Amino acid sequence: MASTAGQVIRCKAAVAWEAGKPLVVEEVEVAPPKANEVRVKILFTSLCHTDVYFWEAKGQTPLFPRIFGHEAAGIVESVGEGVTELAPGDHVLPVFTGECKECRHCKSEESNMCDLLRINTDRGVMLSDSQPRFSKNGQPIYHFLGTSTFSEYTVIHEGCLAKINPAAPLDKVCVLSCGISTGLGATLNVAKPKKGSSVAIFGLGAVGLAAAEGARLSGASRIIGVDLNSSRFEDAKKFGVNEFVNPKDHNKPVQEVIAEMTDGGVDRSVECTGNINAMISAFECVHDGWGVAVLVGVPNKDDAFKTHPVNLLNERTLKGTFFGNYKPRSDLPNVVEKYMNKELELEKFITHDIGFSDINKAFEIMLQGEGLRCLIRMDA
Amino acid sequence: MASTAGQVIRCKAAVAWEAGKPLVVEEVEVAPPKANEVRVKILFTSLCHTDVYFWEAKGQTPLFPRIFGHEAAGIVESVGEGVTELAPGDHVLPVFTGECKECRHCKSEESNMCDLLRINTDRGVMLSDSQPRFSKNGQPIYHFLGTSTFSEYTVIHEGCLAKINPAAPLDKVCVLSCGISTGLGATLNVAKPKKGSSVAIFGLGAVGLAAAEGARLSGASRIIGVDLNSSRFEDAKKFGVNEFVNPKDHNKPVQEVIAEMTDGGVDRSVECTGNINAMISAFECVHDGWGVAVLVGVPNKDDAFKTHPVNLLNERTLKGTFFGNYKPRSDLPNVVEKYMNKELELEKFITHDIGFSDINKAFEIMLQGEGLRCLIRMDA
Repeated sequence: MASTAGQVIRCKAAVAWEAGKPLVVEEVEVAPPKANEVRVKILFTSLCHTDVYFWEAKGQTPLFPRIFGHEAAGIVESVGEGVTELAPGDHVLPVFTGECKECRHCKSEESNMCDLLRINTDRGVMLSDSQPRFSKNGQPIYHFLGTSTFSEYTVIHEGCLAKINPAAPLDKVCVLSCGISTGLGATLNVAKPKKGSSVAIFGLGAVGLAAAEGARLSGASRIIGVDLNSSRFEDAKKFGVNEFVNPKDHNKPVQEVIAEMTDGGVDRSVECTGNINAMISAFECVHDGWGVAVLVGVPNKDDAFKTHPVNLLNERTLKGTFFGNYKPRSDLPNVVEKYMNKELELEKFITHDIGFSDINKAFEIMLQGEGLRCLIRMDA
Repeated sequence: MASTAGQVIRCKAAVAWEAGKPLVVEEVEVAPPKANEVRVKILFTSLCHTDVYFWEAKGQTPLFPRIFGHEAAGIVESVGEGVTELAPGDHVLPVFTGECKECRHCKSEESNMCDLLRINTDRGVMLSDSQPRFSKNGQPIYHFLGTSTFSEYTVIHEGCLAKINPAAPLDKVCVLSCGISTGLGATLNVAKPKKGSSVAIFGLGAVGLAAAEGARLSGASRIIGVDLNSSRFEDAKKFGVNEFVNPKDHNKPVQEVIAEMTDGGVDRSVECTGNINAMISAFECVHDGWGVAVLVGVPNKDDAFKTHPVNLLNERTLKGTFFGNYKPRSDLPNVVEKYMNKELELEKFITHDIGFSDINKAFEIMLQGEGLRCLIRMDA
């Protein structure tokens, strides 16, 4: 154990004191981990839309001060009582949803929606004692998604940490902790395109391009990117996207455009926008008889998915997915290995690279809709 | 070849001269089969809702006179040019949808929606020459679903005939030609429940009970029947249904009732009603993480399937099916073998048994909502 084990650690964190206001990088206290918890030294983190969404806190019950961040990589500093699968020095990816290994979902071959550690965006405290481990001068600071990686040290339930190959470069594999795995797994684990098949990807942001990367790895021969922003098409080529459709360029529904391009529809589609019309188009553009559509994007609360049931009866399948159907602890280590084997390419997702003290710049870049992932180096 | 080969056959058929009017059993002429066609002596037929629907012809472009009937069993009398897989004397099940073995669907492992011979309810003629093979005193009589089994002899495309074990009793396996295979296959081929799992069946008519039979064969331990008519519950027990829900008995949506009964939802559901609300309930009653809902019932033209997309994102799957995903020629012979092995029970589906001359009685029984299948013996 490190000499800090059992002690409160004082370190830098980016604290969000108010909704939508710039984060303040300042010293906080991080209490030691309690039972089944692990304290992790974060080395790299990156920004995901979900952080921004809850930082803006529009239409939400705000929970501040809070430390955001959930896409990251780090090294275990110390472990609490009862932690058996992790030890100080282990390299880990924190995940916003966990795997207790004991509930019906964890025991199911199909589900990754753990009953105990399923994503909870409203909870800002640890499960065991309903207290946060962060504070500043005695004032509690709330957690986010059980990860709070915008801090040099953070405390995470052991069920939300994937132990990975220590040889893996943490400044690359950190992006597997959320968005890239979500898109990649949607294709590899759920859509499962066959070699030589056609795949439509709706939305060419980081998640959609990760879904395209999954189609490329699967050997799909036609990867059709659909986006309202044609400026994304050039970069998408790096991810295997080899045809493009901008719905704005057509005066008929995009599902009809795709059906015409593909003699009746694509074999698979993956929707990564969260827009309800894109979800419906993604479903209706798959071929009858065998087409499978996979929804990834998070919709608005009031949206309704609506289609004529004959679209289903004609043997189309509609599935949704959550974190790419990966079980965080069981499956993420293997995704890291795919990168280590040079099968999966991660470098191309990292379009920006900044120091922790500049973290507010990452928010600006994302709000401007630029780039894919902004790597944040904790030591800079 | 029989002595009748190449000749016009005069035989009895039940002709529908007008929409909704009793059929008239009378002598018609049946022309010999042309290229890729087969003339079949029908021994047993039964009545299915689809016959009644197109006989009533409400809101349809009527096509009369017409010979209905598509669920049947018979023996090949003669074959047209180019027919290689069938010969006189072969035992066959006619099927309303075909398998050409050459199109993309037939070559796909997943689809049974043949491009050439897919169900066509509007066509009343043969594909090769757009003429019917039936006539009476020179007046053409239209076909129905390419099968027209309410005739002692009928002409069918070879792609719509499954060659079966000649030892199989045709008065039993005839019900596999449509409804029973549709329900059975929806469970066995699409829902695929695991041993010990829970399955909800919506609609306890013949198709729904065949879906239940599929759940029983799969070893499902909880088979929950859902029907608005509680009088169906007692008979459903023979098909493995061991729990019942009548939505009328509850003041909350049936999906909530089922979720409470099953700690969050059933593992699989199969919807066999055609009612859009039942379809939505069947989808929403499956468990998150792994639940699969399969739609079988044919909806109205204006129906919209509507659900909150989060129901999908929580890892539920929605599928539709057509003829139980069976490829008629490749797969039906094996379904017949399941009956021969005493795995599948067919006798319990046959609740009525009448002679051909009484065929209008079968329509009355069905319109009264009684029983499951009415066997019609062509020789009586």
